[in-house]
Amino acid sequence: MSKPLLQIALDSLNLETAIETAKNAADSVDIIEVGTILAFAEGMNAVRTLRQNHPNHILVCDMKTTDGGAILAKMAFDAGTDWLTVSAAAHIATIAACKKVADSYHTNKEIQIEIYGNWTFEDAQAWLDLGIKQAIYHRSRDAELAGKGWTEKDLDCMRKLSDLGLELSITGGIAPEDIHLFKGINAKTFIAGRALVGEKGKETANALRTEINKYW
Amino acid sequence: MSKPLLQIALDSLNLETAIETAKNAADSVDIIEVGTILAFAEGMNAVRTLRQNHPNHILVCDMKTTDGGAILAKMAFDAGTDWLTVSAAAHIATIAACKKVADSYHTNKEIQIEIYGNWTFEDAQAWLDLGIKQAIYHRSRDAELAGKGWTEKDLDCMRKLSDLGLELSITGGIAPEDIHLFKGINAKTFIAGRALVGEKGKETANALRTEINKYW
Repeated sequence: MSKPLLQIALDSLNLETAIETAKNAADSVDIIEVGTILAFAEGMNAVRTLRQNHPNHILVCDMKTTDGGAILAKMAFDAGTDWLTVSAAAHIATIAACKKVADSYHTNKEIQIEIYGNWTFEDAQAWLDLGIKQAIYHRSRDAELAGKGWTEKDLDCMRKLSDLGLELSITGGIAPEDIHLFKGINAKTFIAGRALVGEKGKETANALRTEINKYW
Repeated sequence: MSKPLLQIALDSLNLETAIETAKNAADSVDIIEVGTILAFAEGMNAVRTLRQNHPNHILVCDMKTTDGGAILAKMAFDAGTDWLTVSAAAHIATIAACKKVADSYHTNKEIQIEIYGNWTFEDAQAWLDLGIKQAIYHRSRDAELAGKGWTEKDLDCMRKLSDLGLELSITGGIAPEDIHLFKGINAKTFIAGRALVGEKGKETANALRTEINKYW
C-alpha cells in the first residue's frame, strides 16, 4: 500500500483565482484538481493553463463523466489531465470508452470512478474488470449536512472497496484528526478544497502529512 | 398535454462551430442546448454567447449536475440558461439545491433530471415532490449500440414516468419514423444533435414536426 497523496480541488468560478490558489498550494500538495465548477466555468482552458503552470504535479479533471465518454476523455486528456473522473452512474459502456481512451496514451493516464447514486459492489467489480484501479469516495452528504463525522457505514464501505482492489481517493471535509479512521484502507489520496487554501492551508497540509505518516 | 418541442444539442468541441450550427438551425428548433461536451470545452462563455445570439429560444445547459448543485446552478442560470440538467444519480439534497436556485429567479427557470444509473420510481416521486416537472429519457445505450430501436421496456418506463406526472425530453437517435411510438406520452421535447445540423437537418426537423402534429 503506497503512502496517500494530498490533492487540492480548485473550485473557483474563475481561472485567475484558481491559478493563484494553485500557485500558493503547489508546494504542499501532490495533485491539483480542476474541479467540476472550475471546468464548467472556464472550459478546458483551465486544464491547459494548470498543466502548463504545474508540469510536475498530477493533474485531475473532475468531469464526473456520465455520457459521451470517448469525446470527453480525449478532450480532457489532450488538455493535459492525468486522471479523469467518471460517474459511477455512467453506463458501463461509457466507463469502458473512457478507460480505452486513457490507455491509448500509454502515459499513466487513469480513470477514477466517482461514487454517486445507487451503485452496487457488482458495479465496483465491473469497474475493476475493465482494469480501472481508482475510485473516489465522498462522505455521506446527509452526515455532512447534519454535522456528523464519518460514519461506520462509510468506513465499512470503503474497506470493502479497498479489499476488492480499488485505491480510494477520500473527500468530504477531511481534517487531520480524521486521518486515523482510514488506517488499513488503500487510500490513494485525501482531497480537500478550501482547507488547503492560503497560509492556513499549508499548516493543514503539514498536519495531514504528519497524520498520514503515522498510519501508512 | 402540450405539443412536443424540438431541441438541438450542440456538442462541438469549439464555440465557433456551435455558433454556426445554432445560427443555421435556429429557425427549425424551439430549444438550443449547450451540450456537456461544449460546456466543458468552452465553459460558461458558450452559454452566454448562445443566449446573446438567440434571446428568444429556450436555452438548456446540459451539466448533468451531480454535486455542488447550488453553485453550478447559479453559474449556469446567471450565464443565461433557462433549463439545467441534473443527474438522477445526484443526492436528493443536490437536486433540491438546484431546484431552489432555479425558483429563486422567478423566471421559468427549470431543472431537468437526466436519467442515468440505477434510479428507481421512488426516486422519480422524490423529484416530483421537490416540484420538478421535467426529466430526460435516453434510449438504452445497449440497444443503440446493438443497432436495436426503442424497446418496449423503454416505452413502458417512459409511460410510467409520464403517468407519474413528469414531462419527458426524449433522446437517443430520434428519427421521424419513431415519433408515433411516443404517442400518449407527455413528451416535452425531442432532442437530436447531428440529425438537425445543416440543410438536411432542416428537412429532418420538418419531418419530425409533421409526425408530431399527427400524434399531439
